[in-house]
Amino acid sequence: MIAFSQAATQMRSSEIRRLMKLAADPAIISFAGGMPNNSLFPVEQVDELMRRIALEHKQAGFQYSPTSGYPPLLDTVRALLRKKRIKVENGALLITTGAQQAINLVTKVLCDPGDRIITEYPSFIGALAAFKSYGADTGEGLALSSDGIDPAELDAALAAGGDRVKLVYLNTHFHNPAGITYTPQKKQALISVLENHNVVVLEDDPYGDLYFEDESKRLVTPLAALSEGTVPVCYAGSFSKIFGPGMRLGFLWGPAELIEKCELAKQSMDACSGAFTQVLAHYFCSWGYLEPYLEKLRRAYRHRATLLLEALNASMPQEVGWTIPRGGFYVWVTLPQAIDASAVFDSSLSHGAAFVIGNAFDPSGSRNDCLRLAFSHTPEEKIETGVGIIAAAVKKLM
Amino acid sequence: MIAFSQAATQMRSSEIRRLMKLAADPAIISFAGGMPNNSLFPVEQVDELMRRIALEHKQAGFQYSPTSGYPPLLDTVRALLRKKRIKVENGALLITTGAQQAINLVTKVLCDPGDRIITEYPSFIGALAAFKSYGADTGEGLALSSDGIDPAELDAALAAGGDRVKLVYLNTHFHNPAGITYTPQKKQALISVLENHNVVVLEDDPYGDLYFEDESKRLVTPLAALSEGTVPVCYAGSFSKIFGPGMRLGFLWGPAELIEKCELAKQSMDACSGAFTQVLAHYFCSWGYLEPYLEKLRRAYRHRATLLLEALNASMPQEVGWTIPRGGFYVWVTLPQAIDASAVFDSSLSHGAAFVIGNAFDPSGSRNDCLRLAFSHTPEEKIETGVGIIAAAVKKLM
Repeated sequence: MIAFSQAATQMRSSEIRRLMKLAADPAIISFAGGMPNNSLFPVEQVDELMRRIALEHKQAGFQYSPTSGYPPLLDTVRALLRKKRIKVENGALLITTGAQQAINLVTKVLCDPGDRIITEYPSFIGALAAFKSYGADTGEGLALSSDGIDPAELDAALAAGGDRVKLVYLNTHFHNPAGITYTPQKKQALISVLENHNVVVLEDDPYGDLYFEDESKRLVTPLAALSEGTVPVCYAGSFSKIFGPGMRLGFLWGPAELIEKCELAKQSMDACSGAFTQVLAHYFCSWGYLEPYLEKLRRAYRHRATLLLEALNASMPQEVGWTIPRGGFYVWVTLPQAIDASAVFDSSLSHGAAFVIGNAFDPSGSRNDCLRLAFSHTPEEKIETGVGIIAAAVKKLM
Repeated sequence: MIAFSQAATQMRSSEIRRLMKLAADPAIISFAGGMPNNSLFPVEQVDELMRRIALEHKQAGFQYSPTSGYPPLLDTVRALLRKKRIKVENGALLITTGAQQAINLVTKVLCDPGDRIITEYPSFIGALAAFKSYGADTGEGLALSSDGIDPAELDAALAAGGDRVKLVYLNTHFHNPAGITYTPQKKQALISVLENHNVVVLEDDPYGDLYFEDESKRLVTPLAALSEGTVPVCYAGSFSKIFGPGMRLGFLWGPAELIEKCELAKQSMDACSGAFTQVLAHYFCSWGYLEPYLEKLRRAYRHRATLLLEALNASMPQEVGWTIPRGGFYVWVTLPQAIDASAVFDSSLSHGAAFVIGNAFDPSGSRNDCLRLAFSHTPEEKIETGVGIIAAAVKKLM
């Protein structure tokens, strides 16, 4: 059965569907969808792959793959993880149907109804939905500052939760929705805390490759690499932001015993991930299409982020604050406390601009003084106008 | 958490992995894999689709689709269901990540640990794994005869289980693994029984389009069509056998309220099914590639089934029985009772032939006097030799 507490998510689900419609409505300038713009997808590259891939490998794409994944893609992902300094040979790897399935599987394997999962505030809506579908207690979430959660607060939450705490869920780089990034120092401080507790960390890192400046590359070494095996870390990655969400490919690396249980659960969930897109993803990476494509994406998203930040600086009242992302898709805007994000949303929408209200990213579902602006999907030439509409709505409500 | 009773499935899982390896071993003649032969996949047709599909629709294939499915594919599947005489407007439709996910979702939405699911004996291994992953009690399964389960036995099982029974799971056409097909008369008799109980039926029909002779077409009108709304039926279909398992596309039609809950559960499971393959499946069907491909498959599988049945007739001792399929992938072989299928398996394998032992398809996991021969994947020229090896193993053990 679906856990009762998923009712809260159900409202969010219809909300999301509404926002997806808004994102597709050409009359609305939407900062809502956390997805790449269709114009950015590597369509030509995939057309070329389809011409180049040999018949027998194409045939393999029509067939079942092993539940763990198409073996050549497993090797390819291992190479990607090694570049992130993860010691892949110390764990096991599973190809998943998007990182969403990776999050779902770890929760299924570790959590019973009533178990506690420590999350951030704000946190990724898809993870919160998965946690609640298993009846887990996500609490209020630990507040994010510009470099992540506070180690002392994590320590206190782990101590207070005791054996009930089964998972710590962190989105370490170019956070969705907060736009912040954990520094290496912050990761080390958290590792020191985690070493004193017996809990699995799920590090969700779909945006780590999308840094805007080369100097930020030093920031994206995962906690899964830095912990060097002293803490059990499951690392979830995704092809959604570096290839396309429609491929439905993610991956999960972690302690072998845990990954084997996830593979077993996956087998009765969807048997295996799509071999057709696994073959494409394998050749996209191994034939050298990925790196130039990433370069293109980094430039494109850096430019969009710059336009958005300039527009915020130019139009928002000074009581409004926001995060400055170094990569990824998102800026998190904090309103003066008396203003409700839903009121800003209604007013903005009536003038032709949309975003996602902060409430959707609150594990406790109560706080609503923030909003998420995604710059990944909005046409560049509309960013300034769209932000102007939202700023006008904020001013009217102040 | 994974229900404790999935431990039984865990053994099956490693068994399946072993069988997949055997199927790929050129030294072994394998009747194990319930999948199409790689040589039968419509690779050229998909190459052509990739050349013909317009840029904007290709781009949509890289993007998230709505959780319910890529809208043009939903319309295409509705048309397929109407041809099967299902009144699609009386229910809702969901695109799933293979029919395996459809089975998993219905179970998640309807069943708590300890709830009863009435299955057939033998039954589809993937469904049994999904049922057990939610802690459902599958009992022993109702015995299949050549036209399905016995209505009186179903009535008795429903009465005995009472409110604990949440689902009746039936594989109505060209059964996996039994190779049998429910006649229209049998379906009507079952509907009459089900009308007197308050239980959902899950009709799993991945093989219905793969009849060998046109005259068998009259057999494959689903229970979901014949029941005309008097019984709540969820109908699960698949593109795995009519396009390719690697596309990971299935669909689930049924009562709107139930399908909406499945959609909600799917959202936190994998967000949506792969848009890339949904776009391909849509054009494969709507541009007229499906029907000629089905004609080719029907001829190919009819020929393979004929070769297999001829080989069984020529080499098996007369104490051995088997089903005569009118479509699909499978023949179910019943051994004289004293013989254990595992012993036949070991002996056959040592001489170079493999299959799946009956035990894997037993809801209670105890009976092992049968074996499943799949003719979908075995090279035609090896069928006779392979059956000869298995027959020799049986004779040796008699």
